[in-house]
This record gives sequence, structure tokens and C-alpha cells, in this order.
Amino acid sequence: MRCVFLIGGGMNIAIFGYGNLGRSVELNSAMNDDMNLVGVFTRRNPALVKTSGATVYSASDILKFRDRIDVLIICGGSATDLPEMTPALAKDFNVVDSFDTHARMAEHLSRVDAAALSSRHTAVIAAGWDPGLFSLARIYSESVLPNGRTCTFWGRGVSQGHSDAIRRIPGVVDARQYTVPNSELYAEIRSGRIPEGVELNAQNMHIRDCYVVAAPDADRGEIERRIKTMPNYFEGYETHVTFVPESEFAAKHAGLPHGGSVIRCGSTSTGERHTVEFRLDLESNPEFTSSVLLAYARAAYRLSSEGSYGCKTVFDIAPKYLSPQSYEDLVAHSL
Amino acid sequence: MRCVFLIGGGMNIAIFGYGNLGRSVELNSAMNDDMNLVGVFTRRNPALVKTSGATVYSASDILKFRDRIDVLIICGGSATDLPEMTPALAKDFNVVDSFDTHARMAEHLSRVDAAALSSRHTAVIAAGWDPGLFSLARIYSESVLPNGRTCTFWGRGVSQGHSDAIRRIPGVVDARQYTVPNSELYAEIRSGRIPEGVELNAQNMHIRDCYVVAAPDADRGEIERRIKTMPNYFEGYETHVTFVPESEFAAKHAGLPHGGSVIRCGSTSTGERHTVEFRLDLESNPEFTSSVLLAYARAAYRLSSEGSYGCKTVFDIAPKYLSPQSYEDLVAHSL
Repeated sequence: MRCVFLIGGGMNIAIFGYGNLGRSVELNSAMNDDMNLVGVFTRRNPALVKTSGATVYSASDILKFRDRIDVLIICGGSATDLPEMTPALAKDFNVVDSFDTHARMAEHLSRVDAAALSSRHTAVIAAGWDPGLFSLARIYSESVLPNGRTCTFWGRGVSQGHSDAIRRIPGVVDARQYTVPNSELYAEIRSGRIPEGVELNAQNMHIRDCYVVAAPDADRGEIERRIKTMPNYFEGYETHVTFVPESEFAAKHAGLPHGGSVIRCGSTSTGERHTVEFRLDLESNPEFTSSVLLAYARAAYRLSSEGSYGCKTVFDIAPKYLSPQSYEDLVAHSL
Repeated sequence: MRCVFLIGGGMNIAIFGYGNLGRSVELNSAMNDDMNLVGVFTRRNPALVKTSGATVYSASDILKFRDRIDVLIICGGSATDLPEMTPALAKDFNVVDSFDTHARMAEHLSRVDAAALSSRHTAVIAAGWDPGLFSLARIYSESVLPNGRTCTFWGRGVSQGHSDAIRRIPGVVDARQYTVPNSELYAEIRSGRIPEGVELNAQNMHIRDCYVVAAPDADRGEIERRIKTMPNYFEGYETHVTFVPESEFAAKHAGLPHGGSVIRCGSTSTGERHTVEFRLDLESNPEFTSSVLLAYARAAYRLSSEGSYGCKTVFDIAPKYLSPQSYEDLVAHSL
């Protein structure tokens, strides 16, 4: 896996798939001095893809770049793209993805591992913030506090799946759904008190706050009713629906903020209580996710250089592999 | 390093040094099902050391246990004990310590590494919460947000060094010093706004809150003056001194709470701002530190079993080595 065509030193990365996430990877790669962006690979017609400067290639040409790419960052969707793309590309490249379908994680891991091991490549999957940094918060806090309970709050942030679900209702022009932590429960758990006798679940820990642009002739009452009763998405949640004019929607609801908290409340031998919280407050979900992908791309490159092949998750990777700093600097300044 | 004398399966640990921290390691080892506590080693007369059940041995007998201890947890002080103990013991044992003198970290690492490598042992140093978990918060957040700034707040918590310094003033019977974050700065930075034009330092980020039991005939004004003007410890800090009767001191200031926050505020390519916070709220500093040491003792044991020798810090150790759970369970439930 030595790269024969180094552009200006450092590691050569490329982006496979160019939506919101791919665009953010392109822009944020420039913030990492040790990375050179070879280009963007798309399944669309390359002539129609407008990047912020990166050269665009056809996905069908990817194998011609086998010797020029140290790590390929795969920016597809978890539902249908990544389950196919990541194992296929791991046969010829070191790869990183942000696969986030928990129910299919073990299967994805196993398929990518087989592909990467057979061809001596390194793959990192699920390298975003949840799964990703939140998973790290869980494993560290649970390892040091074996007796305790972990809660995850998501938000305030845009759920694209829920926004899409609202948009499919007749009469809806556009919609944004914010997942919002129940502020009383959050404050209580953050202070180390997990309420007794209350079963905590996604429904009572979160509120769903919806902003909807309705067509002029639409029945707003009916739209609101259909949102609030939608199974799997809204049913069982405290849901707020606010209709807004298109201009306000464009001005106030164009961003993709997100974040949340992983909180572990535990106790040690003589009953002392301890609270560990890891919290993210993100103005842009794809911008932050792309930054996590880039740090794990660095790790994939280094692990591959050391001959550590196969499929890894954040649990397998020592923190030093993520940092551009030398080990001496890390010990001196970050330890 | 295979253990020839396994007590009931799992890994055999022992404690070297029996103060507050050693006592907490003893008690919390029982919360880890995969650990057996072989005993406590003390430099004092073993007959005079009262444990919570662990057998007490003389430190001078430690080499007789070379084949019975998988990991030795060294619970000495960073000032004079650990710089000698950890390199010496790493010649014969896998070891873990919570060395916390930043200025001497590189030297300690190098001496322990030489000792451990020469005898094919694994050592983990600086495995507490700062250095330790806070160091992890720094390396992860700085790796994913290369453009940003990291702030560390300590407290509210007892600083034993500052409490000791007050106790050395004539007329002081007992004292507790709490380090308290400046609540306005904390709230501002936590919300992602690092004040412009203000040089942030330990002095303006923290308040020093002192509770003092004075001798009946002591000059309280003079005690307060001497505290507030003490160089290195209090000078330059906002310092509050409260005199309390001995009974109130015993009732309210007997614990050793601590904690704090590592906050990184950063921005990505197109100016979006992101805040990452890792926060600890600990009712007992030694209880929590001992829990971190135990998790890293597990990691030391596993790394040694894999033939990964030498001195490690938290930066070198993949998170999976800390957890008692199987990798399959981690992927299914924590990823």
C-alpha cells in the first residue's frame, strides 16, 4: 500500500460519493496539512458535478487510481449505498465510512472485514459522531464505572429522516424536524440523578419540534394530525407542529445543526456517585461528521502502513493514530 | 507472563502502596468480575496496616510474587514515590500508575519504557482522570476539530496540595481548599463562545474557596492575609476564606469531591462552530481514579498477553482493551 504518486507529501485521500457529506469532506480536508485530496468520484455524470475545486472523476474509473489513493472516504447513505460500496471498495483501497444502521452493524463489519483482509487493506466503519464519538463516550465511561447507567440524548438537531417523512404528507411544501432533549430530564440526569421508577426511552427523553411550509390550499389541521399520529416516527412522542411561511423557513431552518449528550451516572465501592458527560453542540452535522471521517482516514492510513489490516471500528483504534501531532508533542501538551 | 497461580479465573492484580488510592483500588476491584486481588504490598509494617479484607504483605517480599501477579497497580505519590517505584517494578511486573506531574512526564515515560521493554512487560502510566480521561478528551476533540481552542476547567473539587499549604500556616488546625470554575466563563465557553481579547489562564478561570478551622487564639485576619498572598498557590486568584468550627468542618468538608470539564470550541471549513465538552462530576476523587486504574490494569494485562510491551499512555491504548465486554457485545450495544 505504499503510494507511488504522492502530491506534495502526506497522505492522498479521495472522496467516493458527493452529497452534503462529500462536499464537507472536500472542504475540511484542506484543514489537515498532512492530506492531499486526489479528487471526487461520482456515479453521476462528472461534467454535471460542481465541486469547490476538487477534480471530479467517474466512479467507474476508480480502479485506475488504485496506486494513487492512500485512503478512500466513502460518503454514501447507510440505507442502500454503504452496505454495497464499502465491502466492494475495501478490496482495492483503504476505506473509511460513517455507516450508522445499528441493526446491520455486525453484518457490515463482517463483510468489510472479509474484503479488507483478503486484499491486505485497512477499513474503518461507523466513524462519525453516533456511532463514533458517542460510542467512545459509552465504552470509556462504562469501562471505568462498571456499576451505573448510560443515557443518550440527541439534539437539539435536525433529523433528516423525520423531515423527509413530513415532506411526504400531501400539502406539505417543505419541513424540518428538530429532535429536542426533554430539558427537565436532561438537567436531572446531567446532575447525576436518574429518576427512579421511570422507564427512560427515546419517547420520554425527547420532543419532536416540526416546522412546516404548507401549500396555500392545504388543510393544516389534517397535516398536523397526520404528523402527530405517524407510527415509528412521531406516535408516542410529544410533538409540536408550527406552520411557517416559506421566507421564514428559508431564513431560519436552512442549517443542519445537531448534537447531544452521552451521560453515565455510576457509583463506586462505598456508594460515592460519579457523573461522566460527553456533549456535542454542532452547527452543522455534515461538517462535523466529515471532520471525524478525516481524522479516522489518518488512522486508517497509519494502521495500513503498520500492516494492521481488516475492518476496524473506533473501539479498535488507539487515539494517537487520529492526531496529526507527534507523540512527543502529545505527551508534552495534551496528556 | 502467563500466570501460573490463577485464583478463580480472570486476572490477578495486586496493590503496591496503601493510602487513600490503594484503599479505593482494593474496594473497587470487587466490582470487576474478571479481577482477583492477590493482596496489598506496603512499605510499612504489614501487621499495622488494616485493609478491608485483602491480605497485607511487605513490599520487600514483592519479588516472591513475580509469577502470581498479572498486573501490579502502583498507588504511590507522584512527587517522590512513582518516579522510583514504577521503573523499578516494571522490571518484574506489568504495572499501572496514575503519575500526574506534567513537567516530568516525558522523563517518567522514558524510564518506565526502558525498564518494561528490557524485561518484556507492559506498563501504563498517567492513567487517572487528568492526566487520563481528560487527556483523551483533548486528543479526540483536537483531532476532529483541528481549528479551535481547548479549555480545561477543574472543580468544584478539593485540591489536596492547596489544603496542605493552608495547614502549614501557624494557627491553622485544619483546612480544605476547593478549586471552583469561574461560573460566568464556564457558561460562556460551554455555549461555544470563547471571550475575545481575554487571555484565559488558571487564575481567571478558577476561584479558590477555602474552609479553615483556626486555633482559638489564632489571628484570623493574619491567616486570611497569608493564604491570599501565598505565591504559586493563591496569589493572583480570587480567593475566599471562611472560618468554620471543627464540628462543621468534620460534617461538611470530609469528602474529596472533584471533577471539571474539557471544552473544545472549533470551527470547520465554512465557519460553522462546534463545541465538544467532556465533563466529570465526582463525589470522590480517589474512588474514581482507582476505577480508571482498574480499567487500564485490564488493558495492561491484555496488551501484555498480546506481546505489546513497553510503556503506554492512554493515547496508545485502543478503547476495546478497557472493557470487560466481548467485542461482539460492544458492537451490538455500545457502538
